[in-house]
Amino acid sequence: MKFICSQQSLSKALSTVSKAVTSRTTIPILKGILLNATADGKLVLSASDLDLSIEKTIPDVNVIEEGSLVASSKLFTDIIRKLPNEDISIEQKEDKTLIVKTSISEFTILGISSDEFPQIGEIEEQDKIVLNKELFKEMIRKSSFAASIDESKGIIVGVLLEFTEEYINMVALDGFRMAVIREEMKNSKSNKMIISSKILNEVNKILADIESDEDVTIILNNKKAMLQFENIKIVIRLLEGEFIKYKDILPKESNCKVTVSRNLLHESMDRASILSREGKNNLIRFSITGNLLTITSRSEEGNVKEEIPIDKTGDDIEIGFNSKYVLDVLKVLDDEHIVMEMVSGIKPCVIKPVDGSAFEYLVLPVRIS
Amino acid sequence: MKFICSQQSLSKALSTVSKAVTSRTTIPILKGILLNATADGKLVLSASDLDLSIEKTIPDVNVIEEGSLVASSKLFTDIIRKLPNEDISIEQKEDKTLIVKTSISEFTILGISSDEFPQIGEIEEQDKIVLNKELFKEMIRKSSFAASIDESKGIIVGVLLEFTEEYINMVALDGFRMAVIREEMKNSKSNKMIISSKILNEVNKILADIESDEDVTIILNNKKAMLQFENIKIVIRLLEGEFIKYKDILPKESNCKVTVSRNLLHESMDRASILSREGKNNLIRFSITGNLLTITSRSEEGNVKEEIPIDKTGDDIEIGFNSKYVLDVLKVLDDEHIVMEMVSGIKPCVIKPVDGSAFEYLVLPVRIS
Repeated sequence: MKFICSQQSLSKALSTVSKAVTSRTTIPILKGILLNATADGKLVLSASDLDLSIEKTIPDVNVIEEGSLVASSKLFTDIIRKLPNEDISIEQKEDKTLIVKTSISEFTILGISSDEFPQIGEIEEQDKIVLNKELFKEMIRKSSFAASIDESKGIIVGVLLEFTEEYINMVALDGFRMAVIREEMKNSKSNKMIISSKILNEVNKILADIESDEDVTIILNNKKAMLQFENIKIVIRLLEGEFIKYKDILPKESNCKVTVSRNLLHESMDRASILSREGKNNLIRFSITGNLLTITSRSEEGNVKEEIPIDKTGDDIEIGFNSKYVLDVLKVLDDEHIVMEMVSGIKPCVIKPVDGSAFEYLVLPVRIS
Repeated sequence: MKFICSQQSLSKALSTVSKAVTSRTTIPILKGILLNATADGKLVLSASDLDLSIEKTIPDVNVIEEGSLVASSKLFTDIIRKLPNEDISIEQKEDKTLIVKTSISEFTILGISSDEFPQIGEIEEQDKIVLNKELFKEMIRKSSFAASIDESKGIIVGVLLEFTEEYINMVALDGFRMAVIREEMKNSKSNKMIISSKILNEVNKILADIESDEDVTIILNNKKAMLQFENIKIVIRLLEGEFIKYKDILPKESNCKVTVSRNLLHESMDRASILSREGKNNLIRFSITGNLLTITSRSEEGNVKEEIPIDKTGDDIEIGFNSKYVLDVLKVLDDEHIVMEMVSGIKPCVIKPVDGSAFEYLVLPVRIS
């Protein structure tokens, strides 16, 4: 293998594929990145931790001799990142060493035979979905944060992606709160899949790094999903199992509906949480009386009271929350005002934008004495 | 005590004085910040870890009732930082609690009596030095990084500040390298002091945060130094003991003098250090032959060769360095070209700017086989 490639293209591609490299693996080859220089002038970089595989193709590479080799991800990425932005010559020697060369630098590093590297390849297509890139990013951002981060909790570390003929829904929950986002979208048939929220967050970072507005194509079967966009292929092992029947959890009615400035509520809760005790569920108390929301919390160090003007219809209410779960949703929403719908101090509260039904967030209250 | 103060002034002052608060103390009151509202409309904030004390005065505060109280540094700073930029009312209740109030927030936090708080006060003046602020910042930046960070190493955790009638010198060393910076400056008499490099770095952060170009006044006796500028007083306990006779260490002559682009050398060393083994002194080898500097290093993962054009007078030389010690000085210098002066592969190397004698950096070589 021998090729010449610009430092910038190579460094950018490495930053993308290295997101699939895990440092926690006991399989040495998975700490590597597969370099594959093809006869038609392409360099294909791949990495995989078996759950997530990423492949990026750099077109228009000057391939002098085709071939493939695996290089240590950390070392190779470090070297390429620190080289100046000029053409880099990369050559495999007979003894599997790799020579990385520019006008003033010459690195000789150990390579590993590509024979053992997992094939990413194609997946058997049962369904195909095309999604707008910005929409997909937004939906990931507004759902994945609510998934459980506790690997022992099974299916709820994943985000449900549910496609009907008219909608795409994404749902995540962790037993204390749930985020549901829905967008209109034509699909040829209904389908669903569950993807680890950790993997979706990596996908979102990759989507944020690319400049083109090309749509994301998802090729799907019941074991795997393959995302394709701009010379990038991402293969994801789907989580197996039944997702929680989330529609049954969403309350059908409320006794108290509060409209409040998202920013004012965010700032007040941020301050009040200084004095909410971590050991005690970060308890914050909301007292909703007339057109005033009073937020209080206390710890050994003192107590705080915040008063925010609101619009309210329905009953006055007293309700306690874990401040983290409310702050999380206030951070991902962009709306100027939000609505909180409550039934009572011991029933789930729904937080959503003032307009539309595109987003709903459900949070369980903390019982207050 | 009761006063009204703008959030912005208070938050900025807290960020300054909290630099003297240590979390490692076992004396509870030292985790606090003393608030002292005076009858003439000033708020004086103070903090101290006994080695370093910082006092900042906010003039033009609306003092309704004079008095003083100590508040938890972390909690109080957190609260003030998160309040909106408006006037804050702060009032001490009879039970030593503190009420922090704005239009929508009201915090009640525990205070501590100010009786036990260490007096920062004045110091007995034996000498007084006035220093340009930018010059002082620059001298700290170019010396303190070379001091030892190992608290068990005694006096070399400090930086020597040496004043003669014509110069100020600052010197730091750690047994492997030494930085000496000298600037012309008229002083009424000779004097010297040794200040912990950690404290000087904190002083530099405070100097960087203030906007005025006011000179720094240093009031000095043989136990303490007091720095004064822009409503800020910093009292520093000086390190006691004799500093190393650094002038004897600086080589008087050289057999090989190399002039090289600082940027090229920095980038090449940065790359070469990827493959220098930490366990083995980060060894990097310089081969200086004719007008070429060849930098090499190797680890289990591979090896690297970098070639940089140089101007050389004198002998060819082979010399090894711990890459960290060379990189450290390349980071603090701003010069386009630097000079390296060497005697042999086993004698100290001096690195300095091309022009002048304001800065000299001495680094011990690592013996190479």
